[in-house]
Amino acid sequence: MSVAVEKDLAQLVGAEHVRHDAHFLADASQAMGLRGEAAAVVLPGSAEEVATVVAWCCERGVVMVPRGGGTGYAGGAVPLDPDAVVIALDRLDRVRSFDPGLWRMEAEAGVSTQTVQRLARENGLVFPPDPGAAEQSQIGGNIATNAGGPHCFKYGVTRAWVTGVEAVLAPGALVRFGGPVRKDVAGYDLTGLLCGSEGTLGIVTGAWLRLMPAPALQLPVVGAFAGVEEGCAAIERVLASGVVPATIEYLDAGALAASAASFPGGLPDRAAFLVVCEADTSEEDAGELAEALTGELGDALRPEAREMWRWRDGVSLAVTARRGGKLSEDIGVPLDRLADGISGTVEIAERHGLEGCSWGHAGDGNLHSTFLLEPGDAAQLERAHAAVEELFALATRLGGTVSGEHGLGWLKRGQLSRQWAPGAVAAHEAIKAALDPQGLFNPGKKTV
Amino acid sequence: MSVAVEKDLAQLVGAEHVRHDAHFLADASQAMGLRGEAAAVVLPGSAEEVATVVAWCCERGVVMVPRGGGTGYAGGAVPLDPDAVVIALDRLDRVRSFDPGLWRMEAEAGVSTQTVQRLARENGLVFPPDPGAAEQSQIGGNIATNAGGPHCFKYGVTRAWVTGVEAVLAPGALVRFGGPVRKDVAGYDLTGLLCGSEGTLGIVTGAWLRLMPAPALQLPVVGAFAGVEEGCAAIERVLASGVVPATIEYLDAGALAASAASFPGGLPDRAAFLVVCEADTSEEDAGELAEALTGELGDALRPEAREMWRWRDGVSLAVTARRGGKLSEDIGVPLDRLADGISGTVEIAERHGLEGCSWGHAGDGNLHSTFLLEPGDAAQLERAHAAVEELFALATRLGGTVSGEHGLGWLKRGQLSRQWAPGAVAAHEAIKAALDPQGLFNPGKKTV
Repeated sequence: MSVAVEKDLAQLVGAEHVRHDAHFLADASQAMGLRGEAAAVVLPGSAEEVATVVAWCCERGVVMVPRGGGTGYAGGAVPLDPDAVVIALDRLDRVRSFDPGLWRMEAEAGVSTQTVQRLARENGLVFPPDPGAAEQSQIGGNIATNAGGPHCFKYGVTRAWVTGVEAVLAPGALVRFGGPVRKDVAGYDLTGLLCGSEGTLGIVTGAWLRLMPAPALQLPVVGAFAGVEEGCAAIERVLASGVVPATIEYLDAGALAASAASFPGGLPDRAAFLVVCEADTSEEDAGELAEALTGELGDALRPEAREMWRWRDGVSLAVTARRGGKLSEDIGVPLDRLADGISGTVEIAERHGLEGCSWGHAGDGNLHSTFLLEPGDAAQLERAHAAVEELFALATRLGGTVSGEHGLGWLKRGQLSRQWAPGAVAAHEAIKAALDPQGLFNPGKKTV
Repeated sequence: MSVAVEKDLAQLVGAEHVRHDAHFLADASQAMGLRGEAAAVVLPGSAEEVATVVAWCCERGVVMVPRGGGTGYAGGAVPLDPDAVVIALDRLDRVRSFDPGLWRMEAEAGVSTQTVQRLARENGLVFPPDPGAAEQSQIGGNIATNAGGPHCFKYGVTRAWVTGVEAVLAPGALVRFGGPVRKDVAGYDLTGLLCGSEGTLGIVTGAWLRLMPAPALQLPVVGAFAGVEEGCAAIERVLASGVVPATIEYLDAGALAASAASFPGGLPDRAAFLVVCEADTSEEDAGELAEALTGELGDALRPEAREMWRWRDGVSLAVTARRGGKLSEDIGVPLDRLADGISGTVEIAERHGLEGCSWGHAGDGNLHSTFLLEPGDAAQLERAHAAVEELFALATRLGGTVSGEHGLGWLKRGQLSRQWAPGAVAAHEAIKAALDPQGLFNPGKKTV
């Protein structure tokens, strides 16, 4: 970066907030070998400073890469243009207002998901989306990816809990869509459009969040099954039973092989498929629900909630630890095709001489389909990439999606055309061109 | 319309489906005197026929006005161009698939809201949005307006229950966004963007709906209060109590004066403000919730649910009946400004020599602010229009919206600029231009 440019940026945000630290150049996709480069990283101290930086970039045709906590798996926050400016939201970390009695909070983009969840919990409330890596991930990034998580089965993904966003759009306009009002149909749903747009339409700088009273009790009910068919049949029984669990998670045999040893209280030896439901709502009702779920899941286990979810959070790492590496995708399928998606993942792996497994959000038909890898084995990695292509084809063939929650980012660029008809793809591109006519917001990401 | 044009349309959809019936030229806004005109009304028999008609219109620069059940209050479905073609979705009335065990349905746009609700109910499920006029309103129109209703307080508006849409976009492309999959972040949220777009970006021809198990029991809990302050304080107590009612509705003194006589079981004489909550979920839990609500609402009444909701459905007509006419708007405000919105409505009416009242979805801060009118009194109507302008200014000043659920349509055209900053308005307009470059989809509606 030229000295003049650095001086410009320093004048906008302060010299100490123009950085070059390597950690801003990668996100969780670095496990896949993706590392970026950029001219500079700027850390604006306010939404107004973000607007100033965006205006500066738009005037000069400089590419911008917005960055939250860097916990994304699709490389959405990785700068790949040596002339790019990374705009990191870390310093926008204020909770602007919090009204527990009215179930709402206004938070800046850089507030961590954990902070939002902790503040809610300390006041008897809950912010239900639970995408994982809560201590590092930021609410702005959660919005930019429309993040999910286990409890989204009952409560919906991030979009359902955002009543308004503050964002900077081209060519540097600081705007607000929605706000603390819970219903608003005056304008097009720009709040929703920014949710999941992965920083390609503008930069989210703050949000109004909806909260709700926390359930008095959370009772996990876990069923162990002999295989995919038995497990998926149990999931359909749960759905048909008329109760609404907060979560319906699953682990297949491979994911269990990596993680069963640390399951709180242990698992039966025969377990080759696990279904993890949770009953919540008020104390009495949760007990009723748990009984109903136990009925549907057979000899169900009832681990303690906190221990069980800590274990669940560790499943991805446990799977990685099996061979030291993995290539994992987050396809989604209709619920009645869940067994096909799970079995298909293993079959695709076998065809490519790999070990495959999956786990994820069964109730939402959202699989984390994974191919285990030995780090540094280039041939294996190549086979895994071929396997992923087949996986995406499978998801599409089953009427599903190449991404249920991680987004396209950089790693899945170009995959939307597989899933959407040309007219739909054209609408996607028309919206990008309409809101980012210069193509400066996170170019190359979320492309069709 | 020229004979040649009529012949063309007849070839596309069949001569018997090219119509001129007057009832297709107005919607519920005709109470405000709005009646339209059009060259013809076509009733395509399939999504493919809709695409053919749209392509025909786009080729010739002919304006299109999509039409659902015609229950909108903002004139969104009224054709106002003598050369316009109304595209009525009535014949797209098939439920394409229904999987009760998987909590989902695929319905064509012309299926009535009541049909969706009835099918769900008969199978132990519920489609929660309940915008009213269910027997006449159509699911496509519900999506086009992102319709709400009392139970949206707990369950969210229509958008939350749509996992995918089928739509015809310019210049005649039949496309699908989403589908039966419950999570999908591959492309921009076009499903959400079409929800609430009021037919100005394309024509919704079908949708995948999410359903959920019906609560075993619905227990209304109704509190009567001496005035706005006492009633709104009770609403805040309910929110702070940690329970989640399915509804929090209210009626102010004027709305009660019109409707109290028919309240099932009667109301106390002192009642000048009513709060209508409902407890649901499973049988045991609903009882617990109802007890908790009764505690917060004081000497609460417990009417039977079906009777109570039938009464509630009649409130709008009862208010109209007071003087024979009304001008009613659906502003939204943050919850802590609800009392200001309710009192402000009455004060604005008084300043203009009118009788004003309101009722609505208190928990969502959504008021039906209403000015009573004698039909044919032009001076009164003029004063009411001036009052509405002040009402919109009040909503904006309170941090709210000019429309919580009816949309802008034709009657509120131009009001978005009051609420959104220029940069936000520009984004709204850029999206319209991107998806409807010829400006043929419902022109003049939902304008900024």
